[in-house]
Amino acid sequence: MKVVITGGTGFVGTRLARKILDKGTLAGPSGKQEPVDEIVLFDVALPPSLPEGMDDRVSMRQGEIADKDTVDALIDQPDIGVFHLASVVSGGGEKDFDLAMRVNLDGGRYVLEACRALGSAPRVLFTSSIATFGGAAMPDVVGDLVKQTPQTTYGMTKAVLELMINDYTRKGFLDGRSARLPTVIIRPGKPNAAASSFFSGMFREPLAGVECKIPVPPDVRHPVIGYRTVVDGILALYEADSDAIGDDRAFTLPSTSATVAELMDALDRVAGDRPLGKRTVEPDPFIQDIVKNWPRAAGADRALALGLPHDNSLDDIVRAYIADYVDI
Amino acid sequence: MKVVITGGTGFVGTRLARKILDKGTLAGPSGKQEPVDEIVLFDVALPPSLPEGMDDRVSMRQGEIADKDTVDALIDQPDIGVFHLASVVSGGGEKDFDLAMRVNLDGGRYVLEACRALGSAPRVLFTSSIATFGGAAMPDVVGDLVKQTPQTTYGMTKAVLELMINDYTRKGFLDGRSARLPTVIIRPGKPNAAASSFFSGMFREPLAGVECKIPVPPDVRHPVIGYRTVVDGILALYEADSDAIGDDRAFTLPSTSATVAELMDALDRVAGDRPLGKRTVEPDPFIQDIVKNWPRAAGADRALALGLPHDNSLDDIVRAYIADYVDI
Repeated sequence: MKVVITGGTGFVGTRLARKILDKGTLAGPSGKQEPVDEIVLFDVALPPSLPEGMDDRVSMRQGEIADKDTVDALIDQPDIGVFHLASVVSGGGEKDFDLAMRVNLDGGRYVLEACRALGSAPRVLFTSSIATFGGAAMPDVVGDLVKQTPQTTYGMTKAVLELMINDYTRKGFLDGRSARLPTVIIRPGKPNAAASSFFSGMFREPLAGVECKIPVPPDVRHPVIGYRTVVDGILALYEADSDAIGDDRAFTLPSTSATVAELMDALDRVAGDRPLGKRTVEPDPFIQDIVKNWPRAAGADRALALGLPHDNSLDDIVRAYIADYVDI
Repeated sequence: MKVVITGGTGFVGTRLARKILDKGTLAGPSGKQEPVDEIVLFDVALPPSLPEGMDDRVSMRQGEIADKDTVDALIDQPDIGVFHLASVVSGGGEKDFDLAMRVNLDGGRYVLEACRALGSAPRVLFTSSIATFGGAAMPDVVGDLVKQTPQTTYGMTKAVLELMINDYTRKGFLDGRSARLPTVIIRPGKPNAAASSFFSGMFREPLAGVECKIPVPPDVRHPVIGYRTVVDGILALYEADSDAIGDDRAFTLPSTSATVAELMDALDRVAGDRPLGKRTVEPDPFIQDIVKNWPRAAGADRALALGLPHDNSLDDIVRAYIADYVDI
């Protein structure tokens, strides 16, 4: 079978591709495990060469997800599995509404329509977000049954796609699953336009000996997930038995609710004697306005019942990051 | 100011237009009351002449809501108020998925985009539906904070528009409000493709001396609203102070939860000695499959707090219908 990962050259997409290569098989449209012959990493901009850890089963393809013909050409054979990760991020979506609508909503719909056109009802894993929750009536812990009243265009488009995936699945057009991602820590590389980017930066920059500005107060509480666990969770939800999922195909992935201060403490504990770049709290109104409307903790009863993985501790996430990206 | 009512020649649209004519003014984009100079009833198919009770402020325009240019030409001046009622109905949407997506989702988005393009942030009242609720996890009473997991394409597209209206409002592109309609009884005229059509037919046909088949068992419970009250509720939500609405612009209109048997009893009570056409329960699997996933009762705390109207009794609805449409 062919596997398509949109947004595939990003951090999560690349790690997911490696995981699939190691595994060697995935559930095909019939639900049976099939050998993965080909993985296409689709993205709007490509790195100069294949990311590390790939083999000759993997290729990259450049294109716009908001272009219907491009998406139709990408999702082109019945024996396929699709991981739809491509997205304008939260801060980016607040700055360019039309881009968020085009990429997240139109692009997402093209992916679903292309899958439907195959006639094989392939599995589709969509990465949604806990930014689908928000608003004045949001409870302290957002469980799977909380009404979604997102307060960003990003969150709105993600909630819309969740609704569409439920309906396309109900109609038998595809076998969809939405993984609602908590904030993923610790992303290597450079900051991005996500309002949550600092949740990685506050580990990454100090460990690189670089000074880091934290744009929200230390008591801000937020649900986070380790980058290894998020990839395992995405893959486990893709592989889950379709009937066990039920009519709501969207699951918040299990997370850890932590304050910014607790995250700083975890880094201090794990870093030990390592020299760390200075961390300064310097509130940024644009980021704060977005983050204040996000959930402080996210329930994941349904995901846990389905057997999706959970981080052991914040310290373990920091330790993994140091092993994978610092001490190399 | 100009008032546009999409789906305006329908039952609710026509009664709404009459109400606005009587009232004479509506809240304009600034929130201040303005004289209504013009009402345009936009619809995909028009009656041969203006509906009864209109005057020279009213005109009709034929067109497709799923055509962007048509919508742009309709919503063409900053000093405007829009009631977006046009929609493929529930049963119709189950039979033609693409039509529901085109009319309800694309058409709705064109309406929002046309309003945004005016730059005046006009008020937009959208008629959503309690069919946005559903699914295995739905509680017995769906309140305003229940997660929306619709089980029809109709319900899905309505939920998507609610999300978009919240976001367009948050962004300041327009001042949106979504009225989630319970099943409206008693619609005069002919049955339509709505799966809920029988909730009107079971009154209308017997009162016309016509035999009537009821496609669900008598113990089916469902929230209904009288046709006078629904129009009053739509108008009251349009007129409500914007700041009092908050970040979730969608309100379930207050309804009465009644079983099919209780509705039959109400007709018997009010009809008294009138001869009634025979009512036969004859389950229809297509209708039953849709209706079984709808809410049995709908909470409306937020709507009541905002002062939206509530029916006094089922009997009053039947009495009004006899006065308005039978004894004329």
